[in-house]
Amino acid sequence: MKHVWKGLGRALYFVSALILIMSTLSLKTSPVLAETAQKNGQGPEVTYFKLENGLDVVVIPDHRAPVVTHMVWYRVGAADEAPGVSGIAHFLEHLMFKGTEKIAPGQFSKIIARHGGEDNAFTSQDVTAYFQRVAKENLPMVMEMEADRMSNLKLLEKDVLTERDVILEERRSRIENSPNSLLSEQISAALYLSHPYGIPVIGWMHEMAKLSRKDALNHYKKYYAPNNAILIVAGDVTPDEVKKLADKFYGPVKRGPDLEERERPMEPNPVAPRKVVLEDARAGKLSWQRHYLAPSYKTAPKGDSEALELLMKVAVEGTTSRFYKKLVVADKLASSAGGGYSPSGMDYGSLYVYAVPAKGVTVEQIEKAVDELFDDIRTNGISELELNRARNAYIADYIYGNDSQSGLARRYGFSLSTGWTIKDIESYPDRLKEVGVDDLKRVAEKYLDLKASVTGILKPKPKLVAETKK
Amino acid sequence: MKHVWKGLGRALYFVSALILIMSTLSLKTSPVLAETAQKNGQGPEVTYFKLENGLDVVVIPDHRAPVVTHMVWYRVGAADEAPGVSGIAHFLEHLMFKGTEKIAPGQFSKIIARHGGEDNAFTSQDVTAYFQRVAKENLPMVMEMEADRMSNLKLLEKDVLTERDVILEERRSRIENSPNSLLSEQISAALYLSHPYGIPVIGWMHEMAKLSRKDALNHYKKYYAPNNAILIVAGDVTPDEVKKLADKFYGPVKRGPDLEERERPMEPNPVAPRKVVLEDARAGKLSWQRHYLAPSYKTAPKGDSEALELLMKVAVEGTTSRFYKKLVVADKLASSAGGGYSPSGMDYGSLYVYAVPAKGVTVEQIEKAVDELFDDIRTNGISELELNRARNAYIADYIYGNDSQSGLARRYGFSLSTGWTIKDIESYPDRLKEVGVDDLKRVAEKYLDLKASVTGILKPKPKLVAETKK
Repeated sequence: MKHVWKGLGRALYFVSALILIMSTLSLKTSPVLAETAQKNGQGPEVTYFKLENGLDVVVIPDHRAPVVTHMVWYRVGAADEAPGVSGIAHFLEHLMFKGTEKIAPGQFSKIIARHGGEDNAFTSQDVTAYFQRVAKENLPMVMEMEADRMSNLKLLEKDVLTERDVILEERRSRIENSPNSLLSEQISAALYLSHPYGIPVIGWMHEMAKLSRKDALNHYKKYYAPNNAILIVAGDVTPDEVKKLADKFYGPVKRGPDLEERERPMEPNPVAPRKVVLEDARAGKLSWQRHYLAPSYKTAPKGDSEALELLMKVAVEGTTSRFYKKLVVADKLASSAGGGYSPSGMDYGSLYVYAVPAKGVTVEQIEKAVDELFDDIRTNGISELELNRARNAYIADYIYGNDSQSGLARRYGFSLSTGWTIKDIESYPDRLKEVGVDDLKRVAEKYLDLKASVTGILKPKPKLVAETKK
Repeated sequence: MKHVWKGLGRALYFVSALILIMSTLSLKTSPVLAETAQKNGQGPEVTYFKLENGLDVVVIPDHRAPVVTHMVWYRVGAADEAPGVSGIAHFLEHLMFKGTEKIAPGQFSKIIARHGGEDNAFTSQDVTAYFQRVAKENLPMVMEMEADRMSNLKLLEKDVLTERDVILEERRSRIENSPNSLLSEQISAALYLSHPYGIPVIGWMHEMAKLSRKDALNHYKKYYAPNNAILIVAGDVTPDEVKKLADKFYGPVKRGPDLEERERPMEPNPVAPRKVVLEDARAGKLSWQRHYLAPSYKTAPKGDSEALELLMKVAVEGTTSRFYKKLVVADKLASSAGGGYSPSGMDYGSLYVYAVPAKGVTVEQIEKAVDELFDDIRTNGISELELNRARNAYIADYIYGNDSQSGLARRYGFSLSTGWTIKDIESYPDRLKEVGVDDLKRVAEKYLDLKASVTGILKPKPKLVAETKK
C-alpha cells in the first residue's frame, strides 16, 4: 500500500496504509486555488496565527461537511539531510509511527482508523508532513496525538532495525524493480551537479542500509519542534476553536533549537547537455524524456515562474498542447507525449517534456520534433489566443481544485513550508494575469536551454541471449 | 605561473610562483618507487616516527646533493569540504601565504627564494600540501616557518577579499576559458552522483564568490594541526637530525581537535551510461573520452588495483598500447589516443580512455573501436608476453622515478595522507608481480562497464553566424 506522489515535481513517499484521499486528489501543485476562490466568494477565509513556541497555524474553514483535515508540516526534507545519510528524513517519517509513552508502537494509525479517520505522512525534498482526516469531534484527539509525537517519540533499537528493513524493501520494490524509477533517479543525479535534489528522497540503497537509531534521533531532535513546523487545520472549524485547541495541545511543546535559514548548495552555471541511457529488460517500451534545470517560484525572477507555467501549458502539457497535437495526433510519431512545469520546490522547480515513440520511430526523430517545436516558439512566440486559452484552463483548474479540502490544506502547507508567504499564495492568480505573450517567448529562450538539460532514454533490452546483437 | 598537476587522477591546484620542480617531475603517481629501489639497494632507507602531538614524520635520506625537500601534508582536501563552500580547501591553501606574527603577508615564498630555495603548495580532493626545496642548511628555517603557520596564521579581512579575487580569476582563466577543463568538470560531476569527487577542487564559481574569512578559519582550525598532518623530509639528512629539528620546531605546536575518520558519501550502484557533450567555439578539435567509476588502491578488493594498472598499460596507455597501435598507427582513425588507471585517491581511482578523431572520423567510429578493443580483452584476455612487457615497463618507471627526491617525497606524502601504510607502499611492487593474465581479464569484465561510465565529447562550434546550421 505504498504510494508515490509525483505531483510536486519530486517524489513524495507515503508511509501509512491509508492513502485514498491523496491518490484521488488532483495532483496539480500550483499553490493558487484558495485565492481565486476567495475573490469569487467561493473560497475559504484563511486565518493565520503563531503560538508562543513558534508554531505557525493556518485555519482554512470549510463547512460543507463535519470533517477536518489536520496536517503538521515540518520545514525539513531530504534535501536538508547531512551528507552520507540519504533517506534519513523519509526513514524518520516511518519511525514517527513507532509510538510514544502514550501511544504504543503501530497504534497511531489504528486509533485514527478506529474512529473512522484516515491518516498518512510523506516526505519530499523540502518537507515532511503528517496528516489526518477525521470527523470534526475527533480533532482534539488527533491534535493531542500529533503534538505528543512532536517531542515524545520513543525509538527502540529493535523497532528501528525492523523498520529499516521496511524502507529497504520499499526501495527494492519501488525503485530497483522499476526501470522508470531508476532512470528518474539517474536523471535527477545528472541534472543536479551540486544541489541535493540530485539525491533521491528515499535514499541511496547503500546509505539506507546503514541508517541508525542515532541518525534518526539526530534528525528528530534538530528538526522536529513547534518552531520548525506549520499546523494546517482545514474543515468544519472556526479560527477560535482551532486557536483554543492549538494552545491546549501544541502550546506546551517546547521550542527546539533555533535553526539557520535553509541554504543548500546551488547549481553552477550549466554548460553542457547530458544524456542518460538506461537499458533494461524489464522496460516495456522505448521512452524519451528531457528535463531542464528550472527555477522554482521562490527562486525565479519576478514573473518567470508564472510565464513558464503558461508556456508549458501551451507547448507540451496535456492533449490540447502543441506538442501532443503535432507528435501524437498529426504526425503519429509518438503514442503519448507531454510535459510541464511545476514551480514547487524551495530551490528549483521542475521543467520537462516526454514522449513514447510510436512503433518504428527513433529517439532522434522525437528529438528533432521537440527541437523544432521549441525553436518555433523561441522564434515566433505564441498567439494571444493560445495564451488566453491556457490561462483560462489554468484558472478553471484552480476553481475545481478548490473543492478539495485536503487539496487546499496541502497547498497551503507545502507552499508555506517552502518559503512562500500567504500573500504569495493569494496573489498568484493575479500575477498569472500579468503574463503576456512576450514573456512566454522570453522564458522559452531563457530556460528551454539544451545546456541546462538532461535527456533520459529508457530502452527495452532483449530478454533472450539469442536476441542480443553479440 | 599557475599550474595544474593532472598526475593524481584529479587536478591539483598550485598556488605559488615556484613550480619548476613539480612541472619537470614525472607525474606518474604509483606510490611504489621507494621500495623497488630499496630492494635493489638503490633506494632510500625510509624512517618513520610520530611526535607527541600526533605529527607523523617520514625521513627519506638522499645524499647525492646537499639539498632537502620539506613537505607538510594535511589530511584534508576538497572532498572534505562542507556542502556549499566548495573551494575552501584550495582557498585556504592560498591564504596560508598571508602571514603570521613572524612572517609578513606575501613574505613566505620570498624568504625561501632569497635563500635560493623553491616552494609551493597544492590542494587535491584528498590532501593539501606545502613544500619547500632548499639547501640543507636552511632546513631549520623552513621548519620554523612551516610550523609557525600551522597554528599562527593571521587572516585580515582585506587580505581574504583580495585573495578571493585571485582564486576567482584563477578559475576564470583556468576553467571558464578552457573548454577541456569545463568538460572535465562536467564529466566528474556526471561520474560521481553522490561522492564529493564530483565537485571541482577549485570550487564552483558561485560558491567561491561567497567564501569568507570565517569559512577559511573554520577549515583551518578544524584541519590544520600536527595530529592531522604528515611531515616528509627527503634529502641530505639523517633521521636523527630530522627528529631533533622536528621536536624543536613542530613539537611545541598544539594538537587540534580529534577528527573522526574521513568518510565521504560513496557512490550508489551504477545503472546507466551517461554522456556529456560540450560544444564550444574555443575548442580546437573534436575529442572523445570515457571515464569509468573505479576503485582506488585503498578501496579495491585485493589485487584489483594492481591488475587494473597493468590492464590499462597493455590496453590503452602510451604508444605501445593496443589502443594506440590500432587506432592511431594501423587504422588511422585517431590522431592521438590513450588512457590509463591511477590507484590514487582515498575513495576512488581514475580509469579512462580518450581519443582525438582523425579528420573526417566520427565519434561513433571511435566508440565502436573502443568497444571492440575492450570486448576482445574481455573475451580473449591478453597474452603473458604483453603482461610481462607491461610489468617490466612499469618497474623501469619505478626505478627511473626513484631518482627524483621530491618525487619520492610526494609519493610517500600523498600515499600516507590518503590512508596507505608504509607497508602498503613497500609491498606494492611485489603485489604487482602476483598479477596474472586471468586477473587482467577479470578486472576488464568488472570495471570496464559502460553502466559505470561517462562519455565526454568536446565539439568545436562554428565561430561565425554564417557557419551555423540555423
